[in-house]
Amino acid sequence: MADRQQIEKLARLIRYYILISTTEAGSGHPTSSLSATDLMASLFFGGTFRFDADQPDHPNNDRLIFSKGHASPLLYALWAAAGRVSEEELMTLRKFGSPLEGHPTPAFRYAEAATGSLGQGLPIGVGMALNAKYIDKLPYRTYVLLGDSEMAEGSQWEALQIAAHYKLDNLIGIIDVNRLGQRGETMYGHSPEAYERRVSSFGWETIVIDGHDIEEVLASLEKASRAEGRPVMIIARTIKGKGVSFVEDKNGWHGKTLNKEQLVQALAELGEVDKSVRGEIKGPENLRLAAAQPQPPQKILYLADKPVATRKAYGNALARLYPKFPHMVVLDGEVSNSTYAEIFKEKYPERFFEMYIAEQNMTGVALGFSCRGKLPFVSTFAAFFTRAFDQIRMSQYSNGNIKFAGSHAGVSIGEDGPSQMGLEDIAMFRAILESVVLYPSDAVSTEKLVDEAARRKGIVYIRTTRKETPIIYKTNEEFPIGGSKVLRQSDKDAVAVIAAGITLHEALAACDELKKEGTFIRVIDLYSIKPVDKETLRKAANVAQAFITVEDHFAEGGIGEAVRSAMADVDVPVHCLAVQKMPRSGKPGELLDYEEISKNAIIKKVKELL
Amino acid sequence: MADRQQIEKLARLIRYYILISTTEAGSGHPTSSLSATDLMASLFFGGTFRFDADQPDHPNNDRLIFSKGHASPLLYALWAAAGRVSEEELMTLRKFGSPLEGHPTPAFRYAEAATGSLGQGLPIGVGMALNAKYIDKLPYRTYVLLGDSEMAEGSQWEALQIAAHYKLDNLIGIIDVNRLGQRGETMYGHSPEAYERRVSSFGWETIVIDGHDIEEVLASLEKASRAEGRPVMIIARTIKGKGVSFVEDKNGWHGKTLNKEQLVQALAELGEVDKSVRGEIKGPENLRLAAAQPQPPQKILYLADKPVATRKAYGNALARLYPKFPHMVVLDGEVSNSTYAEIFKEKYPERFFEMYIAEQNMTGVALGFSCRGKLPFVSTFAAFFTRAFDQIRMSQYSNGNIKFAGSHAGVSIGEDGPSQMGLEDIAMFRAILESVVLYPSDAVSTEKLVDEAARRKGIVYIRTTRKETPIIYKTNEEFPIGGSKVLRQSDKDAVAVIAAGITLHEALAACDELKKEGTFIRVIDLYSIKPVDKETLRKAANVAQAFITVEDHFAEGGIGEAVRSAMADVDVPVHCLAVQKMPRSGKPGELLDYEEISKNAIIKKVKELL
Repeated sequence: MADRQQIEKLARLIRYYILISTTEAGSGHPTSSLSATDLMASLFFGGTFRFDADQPDHPNNDRLIFSKGHASPLLYALWAAAGRVSEEELMTLRKFGSPLEGHPTPAFRYAEAATGSLGQGLPIGVGMALNAKYIDKLPYRTYVLLGDSEMAEGSQWEALQIAAHYKLDNLIGIIDVNRLGQRGETMYGHSPEAYERRVSSFGWETIVIDGHDIEEVLASLEKASRAEGRPVMIIARTIKGKGVSFVEDKNGWHGKTLNKEQLVQALAELGEVDKSVRGEIKGPENLRLAAAQPQPPQKILYLADKPVATRKAYGNALARLYPKFPHMVVLDGEVSNSTYAEIFKEKYPERFFEMYIAEQNMTGVALGFSCRGKLPFVSTFAAFFTRAFDQIRMSQYSNGNIKFAGSHAGVSIGEDGPSQMGLEDIAMFRAILESVVLYPSDAVSTEKLVDEAARRKGIVYIRTTRKETPIIYKTNEEFPIGGSKVLRQSDKDAVAVIAAGITLHEALAACDELKKEGTFIRVIDLYSIKPVDKETLRKAANVAQAFITVEDHFAEGGIGEAVRSAMADVDVPVHCLAVQKMPRSGKPGELLDYEEISKNAIIKKVKELL
Repeated sequence: MADRQQIEKLARLIRYYILISTTEAGSGHPTSSLSATDLMASLFFGGTFRFDADQPDHPNNDRLIFSKGHASPLLYALWAAAGRVSEEELMTLRKFGSPLEGHPTPAFRYAEAATGSLGQGLPIGVGMALNAKYIDKLPYRTYVLLGDSEMAEGSQWEALQIAAHYKLDNLIGIIDVNRLGQRGETMYGHSPEAYERRVSSFGWETIVIDGHDIEEVLASLEKASRAEGRPVMIIARTIKGKGVSFVEDKNGWHGKTLNKEQLVQALAELGEVDKSVRGEIKGPENLRLAAAQPQPPQKILYLADKPVATRKAYGNALARLYPKFPHMVVLDGEVSNSTYAEIFKEKYPERFFEMYIAEQNMTGVALGFSCRGKLPFVSTFAAFFTRAFDQIRMSQYSNGNIKFAGSHAGVSIGEDGPSQMGLEDIAMFRAILESVVLYPSDAVSTEKLVDEAARRKGIVYIRTTRKETPIIYKTNEEFPIGGSKVLRQSDKDAVAVIAAGITLHEALAACDELKKEGTFIRVIDLYSIKPVDKETLRKAANVAQAFITVEDHFAEGGIGEAVRSAMADVDVPVHCLAVQKMPRSGKPGELLDYEEISKNAIIKKVKELL
């Protein structure tokens, strides 16, 4: 492996690449890249990092996540110095169509995950490290390059505590303490000790170094590789803009590139660059992965006359379906006795990970598992996924394959009151590109939809209900994503009522009562809110003079707007019954009436329209 | 003030109230209330807490936030012991219509804020403490009761670091270390030392006590009241269910109440309760608040021919409008040089608070300021408000008066790529009850809408754009919330194009180009996305055969669905041009074309429809 002099030579080449590519791009973060250059050059080429560049997905490869994603010019330059990116490619940095985006995305084959929203790399790394230690049982290490500014994000401290709790001695963080954030100095400035005090109090081994002294960096990496029983944080004092005297440690140079003249001056300072030198990365071990074979799951079994909460059916489904999906792992945010993820935990404790009350980290961990080929199911109260919206948002850019299950949806949870009611979760998950949003109404459809979710690659949200609901489907029914079920229909249907989850049962009750009065309505179970079943809705519009959507969710971004969008070019008025008054504590039935999403409200609305 | 024996007597009464009210309710968290009873009885009646119960809003009152909101039975029982809630009222706990909700909300006059989503009380307390120390300069203290489970939330550590950074020696946290979370033991179990190590490393003074030894509690509160230069955390080892032997320190009793028989047994254990005893709370000082008088602001001044970014106009507006709104405070998440909040900071540094990269805490701090009568404007990139969705969600239940400004909206930011693009922010803020969502297109309308936002009580979101846009309005134009502007119209308008922000300029360009070909379209600036101007849209529907909405945002929950909802009962097809392909890096113009939300895409769509 490269010795100190060779690494210095490579670092000079990397700095050259950083400077020419960012000046060519005309935007980007050269100074944040320069501060971490010696750290990363030493990691890559010093012999501790092990990676087969021909097989980026090799299960034994060490993983490296750039949590400070704005240092992407460094990431690309590293791979150029490794002979995997050409100088021509580097010059496409940030240009439309280039895999070298402003912040790393999977468009670049060596990017582990999309980063750029700060404070997200460590949770992803925790997921990858958990996978290595407890699931794949492989010796790869996970490295995370962290910025000092982003240590202000709470998600970092969530990840720090969980990593220590799970004794992740295969996880190594490297904080690039370059003192300067975007608009000025960080809270702790140039004091690595400030980070050391905090990080070590969270149970991590800490090593403070000069981030520009190659020998020190190599020694710290070597020491970190011998960690036992706890994760290691290397805290490096660095200089932002290191290597270019007129930007070194200067404020006002965060998202700024050198102009042509400044570049000439900078390159002169850099001195002779050997563009022929290439760094070698040590190869990984080649241990095989014990891959489990899928087995057929057991049958679904519910008594037709015994109501079951869909949240409980979710837990049953996980436990039942694991043999069919042996890559499954399950995470929960300290509420597994409410989401019923505990049913899986009791059966397969080795594949269940308690994430405690830290939803941001939980979501990042799920992405980490997903990146390593696992199938993570993640659960908490629907309301508390709002805590992780940024992580959910970012996972769409990492091609995350994550299944989210939110329980306790809507005002129908009752007495606990608004803080515990998921009333914006449908809007949130619908706003994710190519996401799937499912909302089962009974135990059978829940079981089927969990199966569908597992088979569908990408981000899927499953919304479950707290209270028990009757079984309305036979176990031979299928529930394809993008479908719906017409539960009541006639050729005299005056109105079509479209509902899902708890409100579907209100709609069925309204239908039966109206029928006694000779009024016929169509009732559609819109279990797939995204994608939505346009065809069935269009057919209904041919018969019904109006639609009524009913949802235990706020009006904006929910079922009503999903249906209105599906019917945007069809001439049928869509009336939306949704939660529109300040929610409060009370009995579920009282609250459904209060918010006018109950059987009574549906009957009233239907009569208004006739 | 009450001595040890009197406090023990009051604590017994409080336990009695907790037990009878929760058994009557049939749900709730008695054991989590019992663990903190001695702590809170000592705080309330021991002489350190100062509060005028006749004037809950008295500016000198100490503030007490129950971050562990599920201990609400204790909060209500405390006020019963203070003679402010009757036993009859206590028996309405969790019933529909009662101010005593499952988790505290402002329906209860002594609740500072709605809590129940964990990890949110400390940030709110930081806001109140910042207000006392730096804005109102009043001697009141802010106390926050914290659960041990919720210390896993990253938001706690964001608040801890900011509180220390701002030397908040008027802020006192009390962690109720009762060992048990909802589904089992916490990460650190019964080790107050584990919390002490971490909290003290964050720069707080820490005091570890036995939370059931009244003398120790009183001494710790007295010591905390003498803190200088840093906040204090009292870390109390307690027993969950303390006082009821058969639930003490037992798992499985989190969200569970005693049945009638168990209640009888528990009350027998409790022994003689003196229901006549009432605790006295020491009154506050009575220092007057230096209230600034509103002054007329300066005039808006922009050169008609010089483009200005709306994000810059936002910064200008804050600085210009402060004299008119002297309660204004401004917070920013370490990007004030991008959001342009720095313009305000430079002019009024004493009213600007750097919140660093910690959006959850920033939002909680804003709510704290709002609770103390201030007018907080909060800014970061639009994308990064997703980080605080749970805090935004909860602020609606606290009647928060907060103005959020998200810059760098949409793909038009260009080269930085998807991680920095706000593409779901409209959907997120629309889903807040009674929220207002504003999206100005030029500097003049931005200035006017910041003024409107300041005058409108409640949660208002202002979406700004990174790149410069031409001035299209005169300074005498008004922009009422709920309005819109028709910028191009004729009685021959075939199609109405509805846009806001960056895409409005694309629509105007499309209109001018189509006009040359003899095609007339109506162009509407929908600067108020919520509430939306139905009347103007209906008028347009009378002329145009179709609507086209154009937005630099994902399709779900955005402008398109807002318009479709407004037109749900009007027979006009609404076609939505929005971001529908995976966004990437590139030039703004390239990306607007790629996502088909540019002038060219609008022209193409119009021609398709004709």
